[in-house]
Amino acid sequence: MNFSSDTSAPAHPKVIEALVSVNSGMEGSYGADSVTAALREKLAAVFETDDFDFWMTASGTASNALALSCFCSPLGAVLCHAEAHIARDERGAPEFFSGGGKLQLLPGFGARINRDALEAALAGINPAFVHETPAEVLSLTNLTECGTAYRAEEVALYAGFAKEKGLAVHLDGARLGNVLAMGKSTAAEMTWKAGVDVVTFGLTKTGAIGCEVIVLFGAARAKFAELKARAKRSGHMPPKMRFLAAQAHAMLENGLWLELAGQANARATALADVFVSAGYELAYPVDGNEVFPLLPEAVAKRLMAAGGKFYAWPGGAWRFVCSWSTSEAEVASVAAALKA
Amino acid sequence: MNFSSDTSAPAHPKVIEALVSVNSGMEGSYGADSVTAALREKLAAVFETDDFDFWMTASGTASNALALSCFCSPLGAVLCHAEAHIARDERGAPEFFSGGGKLQLLPGFGARINRDALEAALAGINPAFVHETPAEVLSLTNLTECGTAYRAEEVALYAGFAKEKGLAVHLDGARLGNVLAMGKSTAAEMTWKAGVDVVTFGLTKTGAIGCEVIVLFGAARAKFAELKARAKRSGHMPPKMRFLAAQAHAMLENGLWLELAGQANARATALADVFVSAGYELAYPVDGNEVFPLLPEAVAKRLMAAGGKFYAWPGGAWRFVCSWSTSEAEVASVAAALKA
Amino acid sequence: MNFSSDTSAPAHPKVIEALVSVNSGMEGSYGADSVTAALREKLAAVFETDDFDFWMTASGTASNALALSCFCSPLGAVLCHAEAHIARDERGAPEFFSGGGKLQLLPGFGARINRDALEAALAGINPAFVHETPAEVLSLTNLTECGTAYRAEEVALYAGFAKEKGLAVHLDGARLGNVLAMGKSTAAEMTWKAGVDVVTFGLTKTGAIGCEVIVLFGAARAKFAELKARAKRSGHMPPKMRFLAAQAHAMLENGLWLELAGQANARATALADVFVSAGYELAYPVDGNEVFPLLPEAVAKRLMAAGGKFYAWPGGAWRFVCSWSTSEAEVASVAAALKA
Amino acid sequence: MNFSSDTSAPAHPKVIEALVSVNSGMEGSYGADSVTAALREKLAAVFETDDFDFWMTASGTASNALALSCFCSPLGAVLCHAEAHIARDERGAPEFFSGGGKLQLLPGFGARINRDALEAALAGINPAFVHETPAEVLSLTNLTECGTAYRAEEVALYAGFAKEKGLAVHLDGARLGNVLAMGKSTAAEMTWKAGVDVVTFGLTKTGAIGCEVIVLFGAARAKFAELKARAKRSGHMPPKMRFLAAQAHAMLENGLWLELAGQANARATALADVFVSAGYELAYPVDGNEVFPLLPEAVAKRLMAAGGKFYAWPGGAWRFVCSWSTSEAEVASVAAALKA
Repeated sequence: MNFSSDTSAPAHPKVIEALVSVNSGMEGSYGADSVTAALREKLAAVFETDDFDFWMTASGTASNALALSCFCSPLGAVLCHAEAHIARDERGAPEFFSGGGKLQLLPGFGARINRDALEAALAGINPAFVHETPAEVLSLTNLTECGTAYRAEEVALYAGFAKEKGLAVHLDGARLGNVLAMGKSTAAEMTWKAGVDVVTFGLTKTGAIGCEVIVLFGAARAKFAELKARAKRSGHMPPKMRFLAAQAHAMLENGLWLELAGQANARATALADVFVSAGYELAYPVDGNEVFPLLPEAVAKRLMAAGGKFYAWPGGAWRFVCSWSTSEAEVASVAAALKA
Repeated sequence: MNFSSDTSAPAHPKVIEALVSVNSGMEGSYGADSVTAALREKLAAVFETDDFDFWMTASGTASNALALSCFCSPLGAVLCHAEAHIARDERGAPEFFSGGGKLQLLPGFGARINRDALEAALAGINPAFVHETPAEVLSLTNLTECGTAYRAEEVALYAGFAKEKGLAVHLDGARLGNVLAMGKSTAAEMTWKAGVDVVTFGLTKTGAIGCEVIVLFGAARAKFAELKARAKRSGHMPPKMRFLAAQAHAMLENGLWLELAGQANARATALADVFVSAGYELAYPVDGNEVFPLLPEAVAKRLMAAGGKFYAWPGGAWRFVCSWSTSEAEVASVAAALKA
Repeated sequence: MNFSSDTSAPAHPKVIEALVSVNSGMEGSYGADSVTAALREKLAAVFETDDFDFWMTASGTASNALALSCFCSPLGAVLCHAEAHIARDERGAPEFFSGGGKLQLLPGFGARINRDALEAALAGINPAFVHETPAEVLSLTNLTECGTAYRAEEVALYAGFAKEKGLAVHLDGARLGNVLAMGKSTAAEMTWKAGVDVVTFGLTKTGAIGCEVIVLFGAARAKFAELKARAKRSGHMPPKMRFLAAQAHAMLENGLWLELAGQANARATALADVFVSAGYELAYPVDGNEVFPLLPEAVAKRLMAAGGKFYAWPGGAWRFVCSWSTSEAEVASVAAALKA
Repeated sequence: MNFSSDTSAPAHPKVIEALVSVNSGMEGSYGADSVTAALREKLAAVFETDDFDFWMTASGTASNALALSCFCSPLGAVLCHAEAHIARDERGAPEFFSGGGKLQLLPGFGARINRDALEAALAGINPAFVHETPAEVLSLTNLTECGTAYRAEEVALYAGFAKEKGLAVHLDGARLGNVLAMGKSTAAEMTWKAGVDVVTFGLTKTGAIGCEVIVLFGAARAKFAELKARAKRSGHMPPKMRFLAAQAHAMLENGLWLELAGQANARATALADVFVSAGYELAYPVDGNEVFPLLPEAVAKRLMAAGGKFYAWPGGAWRFVCSWSTSEAEVASVAAALKA
């Protein structure tokens, strides 16, 4: 009954196997290896385009901050939700990597940016007014921190608003697989076709050891050299990159990432049913692998006493995260513990 | 005949095995896992002390910059050799992590800081003179970029000079194993017993996938909370840290790191003999796993044509690096190619 | 009828006279001059203490950012009102000077921080949770951006809350004179006696050319050397500092600063009466030299057409600022224009 | 006999008079005033072009760092002399303003960059090699820290080398007046005609209170909006800028700046004669207002005992600086003290 985080799960065995398979012979260092080179083809298939460049890091915080720092100057700001991971859980990484840029926090239910708030923020940008910090990037998170999703058309709408004002668009896709596994849109539709310039394509929570691919699309590719220099400068150009690339290979091979994300989603849906059947409401719709039941404290405590691991969430909810390794038995245990 | 870099080598099979062995069940994220916790004991044995704290990253640049940024303020400087990795090969990482601190470059043969230059630099520090940037850290590299070593007594001497002026002492030990494998001193003698406050204890070049342990000793442990915050902020707190720790476990188990480093050193010594026997001088003494023969360009080109991989070095030398995976056959091939 | 800003006013003639009086002979550079040295006594009288250190800059933004950067690390945050000058009007200066620290914005009527919001924010600080950025400084502004004041007891209450959690307390006193000229408390009561560690004591808006004194009190004096180093590094240690000090001398001599601030306040009070008499409500109470009448757009336009200069403010109000040089005639002109 | 620094001198009376003359009525804040606007014409006359933009600060350190930060990214470096003011005397301001860029120090006699060293440094730039920090700016200082000058043709030569490699060219002209007062070239010839993109045109040392004009020429004007944003963000956009502009007006009116610089130069030339006549060599040629005699320590001590103020310089020289206010009598006093 460990629903604490999808980052607490092990890696999928095929990821480890991939490391074994690349562990022989000499390879170029710092990304100049054949494993990294071969990854390009797989990413092209996933995103249905050749018009991209990519880099990998072992950390979502790093990939987000590197991506943002290529588009947000020290004199600018990033528009994001007040509960976004980049705002709440990265210890100021965007500010650090951008050299002191700001985050401009927007409200919205379920960690989804409210449309009116976004339009008002964009309307308020006046680069000619030197005293204020103008937004230069819009950062969306999909799946959001509340387990809710933006549909591809919503991403496209918001990205369109942002681009009208000259902003770049970043997508924090730490749980992108969980969104896409719902089958409503493709990776391409959710990213470059919707106007996303740069995505942090997360594979760690889905099942890798640690691999978050930064993908620059179209005109944003002009930032690739800068991205690599920033990666080097921040210690995110490890010498033996073949081992990062091998993880991505394993995850993308035969759609393993979508399969694992779908498995986590299925457990979350089942878990949500457990709570609803037991008479508890959910704080947010379940659009991926996270469930936020509104449990009385006594109930939550009871579950914890029975061995459940999960966290309190603002507003009386509790966060349960399912991973690829969450078993049906664990979900059943929650049901049993609720009845006890 | 690939002597391009020890970072181009694969990982030792036991490192991969260790990943397999920790890849089951849920673990706390971000360093709160049992594998990382258990590593403490192994490090205590290596350094013969319990008075330390540690953090791991997958990158030497990251570990160096994080370590330095805990001791060098934005208003201060780091004394280091002009050819130090932190000065030449990290794209300004120390300046980035420290928030704009400076590197003050010192001369010295074979990438070892000249004693007089160090003493003069230390004597020139005047924190009361607000216009100049005072040195706050001394950073030594051992093995140096020219493959030469400081003896433990030299580290102690330099560290003593630095401490008299209130500086902290950092040791870049990306190839520390290669120095220690020479058998002249222990890890303890080369670090905290010599006055080193923080070491970047590199295991990557020795045989890991990517694992560089930052170890804070004694009074420097007061910086541990700050170190972790800086690691988080810079994206060097990956969620599944058990896989970093597992690498260190494998490398430290039964002294594998020293065995592999010693193996690389032995190949380097043999390779040096090959060059000397062929009548070529060495630019620097061989104190570890790097050899810098002074070869005429024609000879170097001939070796390259025969499949040799190595780099030109300033001053007419060529850099050959041996790793744990360098074979005797490769060394023999160089001898053969030289004769051809 | 120019009520655009107190920064658009000229300097008081005595300030210029003071420049003339110090403009002879050689003086030490960078603050080592006799004029700056002599200022200490005048500041001691104003703040009724000798337990302080001070520095001067020509800019409020600079003084605020320098003060904050001595207490907010790159890893920390500053608690302030969402409409604070440091948040809205300084183009990210606090983030720049602190090396990427954050501002954590709090709500509250009339740009005064709401007590509950402050207590909640303070209660939420958990430095042990490495993922979040902990607040390290509380910054209050008095007079606020809405022309409202905190009473000394309120500053003391809020500062007390902050200090219980280990935060430093900064007071942005760009219009401190306007608060104190109301006669309800002394400079000492409003600063160090209330627990303020560092104040930006503004004299520019009150009548100087450009002089904002940063004063460190008590234990905060330990930061003085760092403050000077940061001033130098940011270009706020001009060589001929006697001319900054001379301005402060003139303003503090015989309480000129309080006299001028009181004069501006009197005009504001009269102006407020004009609006109220004409049947318009004020958005905020008038606690100093700023008036925010809720005027219909047509009325505002009429005043502008008659030569009035003032700015629109969020929420249907309009900002009118009085300075030491605002005349009774200008106030009367507003009354006339309103009637017209 | 105070030759400590030209920054210890008072301002020229006409500068103070100019402050008086602009001190009436309301003016736009933050540079939107009529005095600043009118300055454009005077600068156009000085530089014989209309193709420029400008900003002013009260500090040479600030103007240099702001200028450099518009052209040197956090990922780049500035080429400058090892003894340049930006390297030795600004407490890391270029690193701070650029967000962690580097200075790459070059040698050369008399603080003039050696041509071979410059060409070698430029030849070594390889932006494709991600590990090293590429130079992005060349910064020259004229008059140099050793009182020597570059001729306009030399500036043009060096700027040409730099531009071939895509670098921007900055001129630190803190004592530009002293160079130009020698009558060998014009302000235009020494700046934009020579390929300088941005000059810090210093008026403080020449006779102002504190006014250093940053002038962007030609294509570099594209950086003007960024320059202003950086000025705001660093506290170098004081509200009452008319008082900065007034200083520049006074200094540029009827060539006062050149007259005062020439006066200082004349005193320096006379002082140099005094030393040479007394049998002492000069460490560097006197190209402006600074004299560096090689005096035995006993002689220097004797002069100090007689009331002389000046500083020791590396290499056995002593630095004597003349300002507009240095009198013939002071020079004569040195001659007398030497004979005594």
